[in-house]
Amino acid sequence: MRALRKLGPEVGFELVDIPIPEVGPDEVLIEVRATSICGTDVHIYEWNQWAADHVSPPITVGHELTGVVVDRGANVKEPVIGQLVSAESHVICNTCAWCRTGQGHLCPNTQILGVHRDGAYADYVVVPAQNAWPDPPEMPLSVASLQENFGNSVHTATTPSVAGRKVLVTGTGPVGVMAIAVAKALGARAVYATDISDYRLGLAERMGADAVFNPLRDDVAAGVAEATLGEGVDVLLEMSGAPSALEAGFGALKPGGEAALLGLTAQKFPFDIDDNIIFKGATVHGIVGRRLWQTWYEMRGLIRSGAVDLEPVITHRFALADYEKAFKLMQSGECGKVVMFPDPAHADGPLS
Amino acid sequence: MRALRKLGPEVGFELVDIPIPEVGPDEVLIEVRATSICGTDVHIYEWNQWAADHVSPPITVGHELTGVVVDRGANVKEPVIGQLVSAESHVICNTCAWCRTGQGHLCPNTQILGVHRDGAYADYVVVPAQNAWPDPPEMPLSVASLQENFGNSVHTATTPSVAGRKVLVTGTGPVGVMAIAVAKALGARAVYATDISDYRLGLAERMGADAVFNPLRDDVAAGVAEATLGEGVDVLLEMSGAPSALEAGFGALKPGGEAALLGLTAQKFPFDIDDNIIFKGATVHGIVGRRLWQTWYEMRGLIRSGAVDLEPVITHRFALADYEKAFKLMQSGECGKVVMFPDPAHADGPLS
Amino acid sequence: MRALRKLGPEVGFELVDIPIPEVGPDEVLIEVRATSICGTDVHIYEWNQWAADHVSPPITVGHELTGVVVDRGANVKEPVIGQLVSAESHVICNTCAWCRTGQGHLCPNTQILGVHRDGAYADYVVVPAQNAWPDPPEMPLSVASLQENFGNSVHTATTPSVAGRKVLVTGTGPVGVMAIAVAKALGARAVYATDISDYRLGLAERMGADAVFNPLRDDVAAGVAEATLGEGVDVLLEMSGAPSALEAGFGALKPGGEAALLGLTAQKFPFDIDDNIIFKGATVHGIVGRRLWQTWYEMRGLIRSGAVDLEPVITHRFALADYEKAFKLMQSGECGKVVMFPDPAHADGPLS
Amino acid sequence: MRALRKLGPEVGFELVDIPIPEVGPDEVLIEVRATSICGTDVHIYEWNQWAADHVSPPITVGHELTGVVVDRGANVKEPVIGQLVSAESHVICNTCAWCRTGQGHLCPNTQILGVHRDGAYADYVVVPAQNAWPDPPEMPLSVASLQENFGNSVHTATTPSVAGRKVLVTGTGPVGVMAIAVAKALGARAVYATDISDYRLGLAERMGADAVFNPLRDDVAAGVAEATLGEGVDVLLEMSGAPSALEAGFGALKPGGEAALLGLTAQKFPFDIDDNIIFKGATVHGIVGRRLWQTWYEMRGLIRSGAVDLEPVITHRFALADYEKAFKLMQSGECGKVVMFPDPAHADGPLS
Repeated sequence: MRALRKLGPEVGFELVDIPIPEVGPDEVLIEVRATSICGTDVHIYEWNQWAADHVSPPITVGHELTGVVVDRGANVKEPVIGQLVSAESHVICNTCAWCRTGQGHLCPNTQILGVHRDGAYADYVVVPAQNAWPDPPEMPLSVASLQENFGNSVHTATTPSVAGRKVLVTGTGPVGVMAIAVAKALGARAVYATDISDYRLGLAERMGADAVFNPLRDDVAAGVAEATLGEGVDVLLEMSGAPSALEAGFGALKPGGEAALLGLTAQKFPFDIDDNIIFKGATVHGIVGRRLWQTWYEMRGLIRSGAVDLEPVITHRFALADYEKAFKLMQSGECGKVVMFPDPAHADGPLS
Repeated sequence: MRALRKLGPEVGFELVDIPIPEVGPDEVLIEVRATSICGTDVHIYEWNQWAADHVSPPITVGHELTGVVVDRGANVKEPVIGQLVSAESHVICNTCAWCRTGQGHLCPNTQILGVHRDGAYADYVVVPAQNAWPDPPEMPLSVASLQENFGNSVHTATTPSVAGRKVLVTGTGPVGVMAIAVAKALGARAVYATDISDYRLGLAERMGADAVFNPLRDDVAAGVAEATLGEGVDVLLEMSGAPSALEAGFGALKPGGEAALLGLTAQKFPFDIDDNIIFKGATVHGIVGRRLWQTWYEMRGLIRSGAVDLEPVITHRFALADYEKAFKLMQSGECGKVVMFPDPAHADGPLS
Repeated sequence: MRALRKLGPEVGFELVDIPIPEVGPDEVLIEVRATSICGTDVHIYEWNQWAADHVSPPITVGHELTGVVVDRGANVKEPVIGQLVSAESHVICNTCAWCRTGQGHLCPNTQILGVHRDGAYADYVVVPAQNAWPDPPEMPLSVASLQENFGNSVHTATTPSVAGRKVLVTGTGPVGVMAIAVAKALGARAVYATDISDYRLGLAERMGADAVFNPLRDDVAAGVAEATLGEGVDVLLEMSGAPSALEAGFGALKPGGEAALLGLTAQKFPFDIDDNIIFKGATVHGIVGRRLWQTWYEMRGLIRSGAVDLEPVITHRFALADYEKAFKLMQSGECGKVVMFPDPAHADGPLS
Repeated sequence: MRALRKLGPEVGFELVDIPIPEVGPDEVLIEVRATSICGTDVHIYEWNQWAADHVSPPITVGHELTGVVVDRGANVKEPVIGQLVSAESHVICNTCAWCRTGQGHLCPNTQILGVHRDGAYADYVVVPAQNAWPDPPEMPLSVASLQENFGNSVHTATTPSVAGRKVLVTGTGPVGVMAIAVAKALGARAVYATDISDYRLGLAERMGADAVFNPLRDDVAAGVAEATLGEGVDVLLEMSGAPSALEAGFGALKPGGEAALLGLTAQKFPFDIDDNIIFKGATVHGIVGRRLWQTWYEMRGLIRSGAVDLEPVITHRFALADYEKAFKLMQSGECGKVVMFPDPAHADGPLS
């Protein structure tokens, strides 16, 4: 089969032929129909410091996918062969204290698809049966594929209570704009968004933002203050990892407010704990992955009820063979979610 | 009457004669029996930057007190004249959105005794009737006086759930050691403590710490790891404001853990949000003041049931007239709570 | 002034002339512009057992209102004279443990407008200043008046978490149908409703119910099971007080579900605690009044953002002088909210 | 091996020889060292209606146990052979929505040891590996065995917040008295208890109750009122299933209080939802089983830290061969926990 792999500690990927992977007794073999690109994949492509620290080539990359179950191990009762499934990318141990107390997303033994074990940019991928999430046959493949990433948005936006509250989303990449849609669906009174890319602020508006601010041009503090009658926001969803966005976001947060932090800063930076957290009596939540599998059930409800429409966030489709074009586009930032199709015949929209 | 006042923007206090204050229609006049010293008072004494920014001399200082109600305004139904009371030091507006939704400790219009209005280092002090908290006549005056400060400990230690959990307290000044006692009373499985003062670590042990670490001598990370079988602690109560303590405390925190931050750092410092909060899926609570008046009810229960004994934290007593000795002692750090008595005849223990 | 009063222990009201009430130092005098009818008022009109037990004639009835502040006591800083206000009907003591810990809705010293002190079916009414809630001048008077009742809906629907969950509302009188709208606005995946009145089920649909069931005609259990793919609902909002509705509602509740109970049964009845609560691991919340004043802030957000539209629930308007017609209509059940206007010139829609 | 079995739909058990059970690929075979008796076992012994409805003879009974792992299936990584383990009696499916969202105690596919599959009153028992809970070698076998039952107490007493609060436990059988000890360990300000058995009230006092009441002799309402200065209790832990105890318990509950209900009433009974739940704004929690495996971790902490001492609740020990004497004693009610030993040589105290 074909697989897009990182072959050594250097920039780039290569599309090579390797054997179809073996399926273990508790695993399923999935024929990949669609696979979407995450910022993490770009880091691995570019081989930045984080990638060098966490990834051991050679490895097949990619962790967002949908496909059809074509084989399964002896212990597997579901999903059945022929089932369309997406996949949770975090393979957890099921035996540690976190896994056994509903905190599997914090399992210290987690193996991530495409980071620690072979991933989904390939014709086939193997995942544990419990990581395979059944999708309805009518779900568009692009939407099915990006659910893993959507789960980050849902986990973040459901951790503080947003119902009836004013929310600020800092960083409007795909996870940020999907979080905007979730917050709106869950009864947020208003959602504001900031980003330094006007392209992405446009996406934010299409996903439901009530007002957007570009700090390169707008006075974010003044804009949020005006929009909130001087009160500030009740909830901050931080999706950028940019120190300036963290400063602006906490600055806009009301006393007693809640912040959920997903964006990684990748470095220490000078942070004012007194003003940002203590004097405000704020509550701050670190967000990692998805609640296993609470978040997947929440996603299912939000998508199937129509409360959240993910179509606008999907901006480009490529054949897997055109992966270089796809990654160049990702690096430009002028895109929402980018989906690749191992077999272009399965593309659910025009290819770029 | 005599009052210990900050007369101008410079180091020190002066004990001067001023008129007994007028009592407003919703206020009570308290004859002060005991008044304890807080770190904030030392800042005002030393006239550091924070003091210069927040205090406008001339003003009578001091905000921890107990005394007897000797007069009251026309609207006051309780407390009655003759009642022994302590006082909440935060005078709130009762009309803002925070006050009207059980978040009065975050009231933006808060006036603090001894900071924004005349305080308690005096023969008499005036406070709003709702700030006067009735004490039982048998309560030692020293304990009654320091309840305001104890409330910081209770607010901090009751914000995360400590029941059955392992807790680390960083900073064992009076608020820290009282928090140790609260955590133990609320069913913490174990409480560990760190400080750079062996004197204060001794207090921590007397208040119930299961193990103490001095980072000037001990490897805190290794010590906590050994005490927790390598797991780390479930809860961090940060009472020091020292960046190194924050680093050590978050370093010792388990994935999924909770941190409550009370100690002020007074400066920005390089903080690793990724490792300390996000990757851990941690929840961080900023703590300010006391929940009004939930925390006071909790204090009452903890003290009256005998679950917490505050006597060991009271290490020195002075006549108010000996305030210079008291403040010198506070500056040395070789003390727990220091209580001053306007009338030495009311001292509930030997004077230093 | 004119006032609709219960003059003795018997059926009916009388519209009589009495002096304009005196305003106390912490109170405001409101010129009533609109006043809506609650089921409680019908009980007092009919003089049922509850009324006989709780109401001491003579008294002016009515507790849902809006009007303009025309006088205020010496201590009142807000609202100002000329301000349009609605009123919280529960006058609380501010000094008990419940009031002092954000639980004022459970204050044991509560006095209710129109039940324990003179109410709002009159040209003027006096309420404590803290009970007067400022309304924007553009708010329709009918909507402004019924906010007190809407608050019951908001308190009920915000107590369990409804976001992304399936909800059953049993009882679709005005409080029930407004709760449907709130649950939808707060991100419920679906809301189902039951009532024995097709008229009221029609209102439920207009307020957003996804499916409605009339147990006189429909198999509610089968209907809910079909709508929820056999799973049952996550949340029950019980608004009827009918034992059969409680049985049906708990029967439809999923294991692990939450129920919020507002409807009064007015009698003991045989209840299956094992099946309804224990085996399900259910959580049940008793709901009384409104969270003071958290619920009012939530109402403001829901109404002003447009997330909830209360117009469809207002079905009839009368001049106060036509109160007999209004109460006869209430007794028929063929109505939503019924609003009365002391001065018909203020009616914001055609009078019946 | 020997096994105590229910052979048909009639009163009593028989100790018979059957083959040692086969161990499946995900299971372990445990050589039983101690096995304690639950009220459920008495129901099966007596063959009451509940037993007739839920149990299909022939079956080996018993679900509280400790023993040594002597064999394990091919997929089992832990526990290892030779490990001392106790067992969670609820065998859950791991695949339903409840299991996959940290609500495994509500799994609709639950199979209970000794009820739906062969249990522990035998020389050997097979359980899924994930149900085997490692015990430290120094733990007394009696304590290890009864942990399953202790878990009911822990689940109940940890569901409401008891820290600093006044608690009433109605029903002081073993689960009730262990809940008293848990509430005390978790910082309850005071714990009161009621039962109609003075023997069991004696156990309650030994486990830490501050005051006990026998409704056959005492005025419970007056007693609780006096103990709580007329306020009532903050928390009710209902362990009896007796309608009179439910009435008394809810009657003693403060407005705003929390109740956790574990005791099964086995019948509908006239319940006053208005006064007991709604007007009080109470929160009521149904409790079933143990949180899987959160409760087990909490148990471990409470026992190992010494915060809870379970020795006083163990009142009698028998050889398994003397099961008739053990069940007669259970029927008398004059006992705490009764432990049986398949091999009397393992008894950790004198046999009765």
